[in-house]
Amino acid sequence: MRIALVAALVLSSGFAYGDEGQWQPYQMPSIADKLEQHGIKIPAKQLADLSQYPMNAVVSLGYCTASFVSPQGLVVTNHHCAYRAIQYNSKSEHNYLENGFLAKTKADEPSAGPNERLYITEAVTDVTKQVMANLSADPLARYEDIQTNSKALVKDCEADDNYRCEVNSFHNGLEFYLTKQLIIRDVRLVYAPPESVGGYGGDIDNYEYPRHSGDFAFLRAYVGKDGKPATYSKDNVPFTPKSFVKVNADGVKAGDGVFVAGYPGSTSRYRMTSELKFASDWLYPTYASRYQLQIDTIKAMGAGNKDVAIKYAGTMASMENRMKKLNGLLDGFKATDIVGIKQARENDFLAWLKQDKGANQALVTELQSLLSTQHQQLQGSYYFSNAQSSALLDAAKSLYRLAKEKQKSDDKREQGYQERDMKMFTAKLERIDSSFEASVDQMLWQQDLNAYLAQPLKEAALDKALGITSPAQLDAKLASFYQATELNDQAKRLAWMNADTAAFEASSDPFIALAVALYDANMAQEKAEKRLEGELSVARPAYMKAVIAYNQANNWPVYPDANGTLRITYGMVDGYQSKDALYKQPFTRLEGIVAKHTGVEPFNAPSKLVDAINAKRYGSHEVENLYPELGTWICRLFSCLDEAGKFGSVPVNFLSSVDTTGGNSGSPVFNAKGDLVGLNFDSTYEAITKDWFFNPTITRAIHVDFRYILWMMDEVDNADNLIAELELVRN
Amino acid sequence: MRIALVAALVLSSGFAYGDEGQWQPYQMPSIADKLEQHGIKIPAKQLADLSQYPMNAVVSLGYCTASFVSPQGLVVTNHHCAYRAIQYNSKSEHNYLENGFLAKTKADEPSAGPNERLYITEAVTDVTKQVMANLSADPLARYEDIQTNSKALVKDCEADDNYRCEVNSFHNGLEFYLTKQLIIRDVRLVYAPPESVGGYGGDIDNYEYPRHSGDFAFLRAYVGKDGKPATYSKDNVPFTPKSFVKVNADGVKAGDGVFVAGYPGSTSRYRMTSELKFASDWLYPTYASRYQLQIDTIKAMGAGNKDVAIKYAGTMASMENRMKKLNGLLDGFKATDIVGIKQARENDFLAWLKQDKGANQALVTELQSLLSTQHQQLQGSYYFSNAQSSALLDAAKSLYRLAKEKQKSDDKREQGYQERDMKMFTAKLERIDSSFEASVDQMLWQQDLNAYLAQPLKEAALDKALGITSPAQLDAKLASFYQATELNDQAKRLAWMNADTAAFEASSDPFIALAVALYDANMAQEKAEKRLEGELSVARPAYMKAVIAYNQANNWPVYPDANGTLRITYGMVDGYQSKDALYKQPFTRLEGIVAKHTGVEPFNAPSKLVDAINAKRYGSHEVENLYPELGTWICRLFSCLDEAGKFGSVPVNFLSSVDTTGGNSGSPVFNAKGDLVGLNFDSTYEAITKDWFFNPTITRAIHVDFRYILWMMDEVDNADNLIAELELVRN
Repeated sequence: MRIALVAALVLSSGFAYGDEGQWQPYQMPSIADKLEQHGIKIPAKQLADLSQYPMNAVVSLGYCTASFVSPQGLVVTNHHCAYRAIQYNSKSEHNYLENGFLAKTKADEPSAGPNERLYITEAVTDVTKQVMANLSADPLARYEDIQTNSKALVKDCEADDNYRCEVNSFHNGLEFYLTKQLIIRDVRLVYAPPESVGGYGGDIDNYEYPRHSGDFAFLRAYVGKDGKPATYSKDNVPFTPKSFVKVNADGVKAGDGVFVAGYPGSTSRYRMTSELKFASDWLYPTYASRYQLQIDTIKAMGAGNKDVAIKYAGTMASMENRMKKLNGLLDGFKATDIVGIKQARENDFLAWLKQDKGANQALVTELQSLLSTQHQQLQGSYYFSNAQSSALLDAAKSLYRLAKEKQKSDDKREQGYQERDMKMFTAKLERIDSSFEASVDQMLWQQDLNAYLAQPLKEAALDKALGITSPAQLDAKLASFYQATELNDQAKRLAWMNADTAAFEASSDPFIALAVALYDANMAQEKAEKRLEGELSVARPAYMKAVIAYNQANNWPVYPDANGTLRITYGMVDGYQSKDALYKQPFTRLEGIVAKHTGVEPFNAPSKLVDAINAKRYGSHEVENLYPELGTWICRLFSCLDEAGKFGSVPVNFLSSVDTTGGNSGSPVFNAKGDLVGLNFDSTYEAITKDWFFNPTITRAIHVDFRYILWMMDEVDNADNLIAELELVRN
Repeated sequence: MRIALVAALVLSSGFAYGDEGQWQPYQMPSIADKLEQHGIKIPAKQLADLSQYPMNAVVSLGYCTASFVSPQGLVVTNHHCAYRAIQYNSKSEHNYLENGFLAKTKADEPSAGPNERLYITEAVTDVTKQVMANLSADPLARYEDIQTNSKALVKDCEADDNYRCEVNSFHNGLEFYLTKQLIIRDVRLVYAPPESVGGYGGDIDNYEYPRHSGDFAFLRAYVGKDGKPATYSKDNVPFTPKSFVKVNADGVKAGDGVFVAGYPGSTSRYRMTSELKFASDWLYPTYASRYQLQIDTIKAMGAGNKDVAIKYAGTMASMENRMKKLNGLLDGFKATDIVGIKQARENDFLAWLKQDKGANQALVTELQSLLSTQHQQLQGSYYFSNAQSSALLDAAKSLYRLAKEKQKSDDKREQGYQERDMKMFTAKLERIDSSFEASVDQMLWQQDLNAYLAQPLKEAALDKALGITSPAQLDAKLASFYQATELNDQAKRLAWMNADTAAFEASSDPFIALAVALYDANMAQEKAEKRLEGELSVARPAYMKAVIAYNQANNWPVYPDANGTLRITYGMVDGYQSKDALYKQPFTRLEGIVAKHTGVEPFNAPSKLVDAINAKRYGSHEVENLYPELGTWICRLFSCLDEAGKFGSVPVNFLSSVDTTGGNSGSPVFNAKGDLVGLNFDSTYEAITKDWFFNPTITRAIHVDFRYILWMMDEVDNADNLIAELELVRN
């Protein structure tokens, strides 16, 4: 029974578009009426301007979003976004992950680590014409031309090495924009609660609501005395941002309009239904079963070996997160017939397209055919790709590829192998040691090789290089790889960065030899993929152009899929109907932390926090009423605790209908005036399928309420110095 | 962390008494103001009168409650209350459990089984004086005197053998009432939905909400042509009840007052805190671990043996139900510090008692000391009692006891061994065959004997009779019991009902011999328990008298603990705050059935039901609005589906704040006018601890909405004949 309640709701309400849309800032004036409907008072034009408040206070961590909250470069983001910085500074004698950290003066603020960066987007420029200039007709050449044009734009933009630049494709290759970001290279740790607050509920509560997570942390941007970005130095000074966001200590109420700015990573809302079907029927189930095996394997091996458990803790956390997301996708597809919904929409679009005599009917057939090829390609290369999953083989392949790429001039090299990439390349090679154990690496690789051997699609180069015909021989063969290799030695691994191809080809290191042996097969596969991408770079934009015209004809929103670039989304503070007769209210309260508290991880709130709650030490942060329209009878049905309609606690997390995805972690949540009221950190399990289809009835983002952050600073951690640094405002 | 959110709520609200109370009907005029506050229009005086509408339409099944709904003896109760009747009529060629059953004419109504009865309470009389007359001072004699006085009253009352009479203790022996019930001996099956409707959600949803259970079934009372009760005969005619309840097809809305009449089994709300502590710290955990072992054992043995699985299906269902209840109790004690709450109240009471110079201070010390003895007694006899758990040993013990009791005159015999009890006695002996497998019986018994052997409290008679000293010898010993016994033969088992004690004492049947060998030890234990009961029969009433005076002084409700007698409880249709930010709405809807439907038991709704829902065939049963006071914004937060506030479906189950417990299953739920609007069938998991402490914020009973029953009859099962027989009214 795939068509469940929610599907029925969505279908019957005729696709109300709700608060859908991850908008490019420049688009804001075009949705000014929607912002007004949500009571948002800050002018749309101002929101569109990256040099004005509040957008010039929004920053990227590369993988998360953050915002400046003081004139002295103080930055707030999620605890899980600052995790690496906290971990980097944690020692057995002062475990900041376990106990939290607070610098009482700037002199106490340690470096967040040599690789931490803040990126401030200063300009986003339409470069479609430049990227699409003089493209070849041959698909592979066309693909390379797009790369070459993009790389030239980036090189130009990065002439000042204080900037990072990137060209991104929008609307599946219909448009291209160049993003220019100032790089802050000296980031320091200022304040982080213990993980038992920042990650309260851990993996159990991940993607769940009601939630009680204090997922926040403070960092600070430092620059050289000349005000220019500089790597860490004692003599550096706090960075003065162009502006910083004010914190509203009164927060928001149910029904209030909010907006969120950040760097959402990736969505697939404009993909064809056949792509969704491929993902839901093959891709996700296939990934899920491999992940589950890997998780079970690492767990089992870690149970008897603490070293393994520690080294793979990060890997496990991210795998469990991805696994929960995969399960959420698969459960979501069961609960709501999204394929059916998308197909119905697509059919409407196709019917519309037929009526438009001028439109190119063939574009859909063409795209469908290419997609079908792509899905075959993906299925065909799946087992061969997995069969190369060893971290050491991966390193060997990258190193040999680097030697190959170095034979070209820098601007002709593959992305990731240019001079600008070498710092990250080195860091990646270094990082292996902290999350690698030969026994685990071998076991996971062996499982993938077994799966490869058990299926019919063979790659001759691999079969020849391995020289085995049955799984029984694998164990001894792989063991010999790990015994003979020197790639597990960091210095020797890094030394290969300077070797030429001949050195690789003469090497007897088994992983290097295997990388060399597989090079041609891998390059052939990459070439086929690039050729297909080249074909898709014609077909997809043509299709998108028609879809956009269709959406505009219907007065439906047109915003590009998320691609890691800066976006704005608006919505309102709101609960949701999770299941029949089960309503999730928009605010959680302090007392909910105590109700979940067992003393056992991940529900082990610090005793000073539990004590403060039990003593009702709400301080100035107690909230009287969060439901403005409620009468006494109705109020009993909500979070208000007594007949008088009083909330009578401090809100911890809250929900809103804004449209977010991974990468939006740490994003500032603004009230109607543009004051900071919360930090985005997660979304609900029911809404995981929003990457494919935005269902306004169940899609909610989960935010840390800034009143909880202020309460923690005030009543639990005595972070008076930081509170004084914030600009607190009231309604 | 035992004091959780809920405890904080309860404590801070100063024990608002909410809708607490399982009232004796005669008490209704004393709470007329409360009924009025709930909008209940039917006069309290009328509710108190068992000869008037609606109380004269409420009947007992012995273990459940039901009500007359037509002048022709049609009765409605829960599906799970009619389970035995449906099972009795299910054959492989027509499996009514699986497919449901509907008699289109009275001629098609089969007997519900020879042991099914309906009991109509005609009178409840205060017999405290008679029961307490001429009691001896010696505790054991006092206990026996109370029994003798009660048996005399019962014998008198049962002079007309169409009546069943019972004397029950109220307020822990402070008062006694005699209940006189007309016995209907010919009960027939009329209409039952499939178990996939009646028990939708099965054990997974048991005690849970949101719920979607069609837990209803119809029976019919038949009598002889003379209108008098008679056993089943083709010539019998439908019984004409004194009255029958009208069904209100408009049902109830959120906030409406309701009341429920029925036969709640047992509560312990007036017990001392030390008794609660004993239960929560020792009794429940000890029971739970034994049950879990038994459940696991039966499951494992049933997995490989379908016969075992079928025979123990009923046992398993009831054990899993008890297990869930035990877990609910233990979880409830963790979530809310009920011991602390009760202790605080008890301390207040004790302080009050000290101020009252006239009160007997010693009564509390006296009771505490007796309870401490009782708890030691229970712990002491626990392993010895369990060590006799074989069903065949149990039969042997009952049979030998019968032979012993028969040596006395009928009125002196122990309850259960009098002539009036012989039909049930026989039925119990017969019933063994349908739920007994020697291998399982032996395994469970052996586990209990192992537990007995592993602890220090020994009973010499058992050790001598078993003749073993180590667990290793048990297996062969017990196997020899099952090989040699003839008690597994029903005819031979029943024949022992006529044997004298000498025959038992000469028998070489190992179970009979063991029963004889343990008789004296068991009788000694029983005697000790009776002596203690005799002592408690002085101490408990004295304590209760003081507690009642204290409650009255505080204007708190005074109603007796449930004891299986007829009670009335009132409340309102209402959802509840299940957890922080998680609100459970009072009504579920048809679409929720489809959302849960997987096609796999217990979520395997019949396709004709699923089809009717998907086609939105609501018929005349669609409900427009269930939340009268809601505006549009608020409405979105509730079950109303659209901004206009429309419910737009048929309600399936609903919640109310009435005060129920086991035995209230099948109870009619009445609206303010006394029309039938639903059937009680369960209560929520969070509320399981209500047997000890009524927490008004989370205690909700779960009812089948009669609109769902009517919809099933109308749109799914075409039970037009029965709809025509009901008296349907509208608001």
